[in-house]
Amino acid sequence: MLTNLFDAFPDAAVRGVQETVEDLLSRPDVRIERIISTGQASPPGFWYSQPQGEWVMVVQGAAGLHIEHEEQERVLRAGDFINLPAQVRHRVNWTSSEEPTLWLAVHYDLPQQESK
Amino acid sequence: MLTNLFDAFPDAAVRGVQETVEDLLSRPDVRIERIISTGQASPPGFWYSQPQGEWVMVVQGAAGLHIEHEEQERVLRAGDFINLPAQVRHRVNWTSSEEPTLWLAVHYDLPQQESK
Repeated sequence: MLTNLFDAFPDAAVRGVQETVEDLLSRPDVRIERIISTGQASPPGFWYSQPQGEWVMVVQGAAGLHIEHEEQERVLRAGDFINLPAQVRHRVNWTSSEEPTLWLAVHYDLPQQESK
Repeated sequence: MLTNLFDAFPDAAVRGVQETVEDLLSRPDVRIERIISTGQASPPGFWYSQPQGEWVMVVQGAAGLHIEHEEQERVLRAGDFINLPAQVRHRVNWTSSEEPTLWLAVHYDLPQQESK
């Protein structure tokens, strides 16, 4: 069990390997995740569209976030956060290839069937 | 409205003045706060005892957290997080006097009467 956000950066965190996602808290009404990206992006044409809301912050690194119907992507750097209400389609255009990008994501308004 | 966790450190953030607390997200089932401490501690004999759960991380700075029935205080430094279930009595013995201590707190299991 992690106790520090910067602990145990996975060995697999090298460019091109899959993102690493770990639960930091899992409750019926909220789930907090640490996500580590190492240059990944959403596949071409892929959009996230989630039944729950997501508040997400880039703690370290950088990412380009594209929200549907917005002309320009949003560039998120250390400390930048954004709230993505449920069903808001978005995709990650890029994440830094210079260093791991560490995200903190708080999922809320969880659908009942996903509750634990 | 803040968009970066390090934005707009309040002018009042000088040692001895009250802590600064700002909502980053407020939803019926979750509330995310930024808290900036500048050397404050809980008053002698005071314990926090909250009806909701709280997941809290020190992003910058340092703090000594005392959880009731634990012999030793927990020292939290950058990246350290802890989950405080509802009703777990705790107090902040100290926060850094060297630099502001920036906390990110996620309150969950909110009582219905506190929902917005």
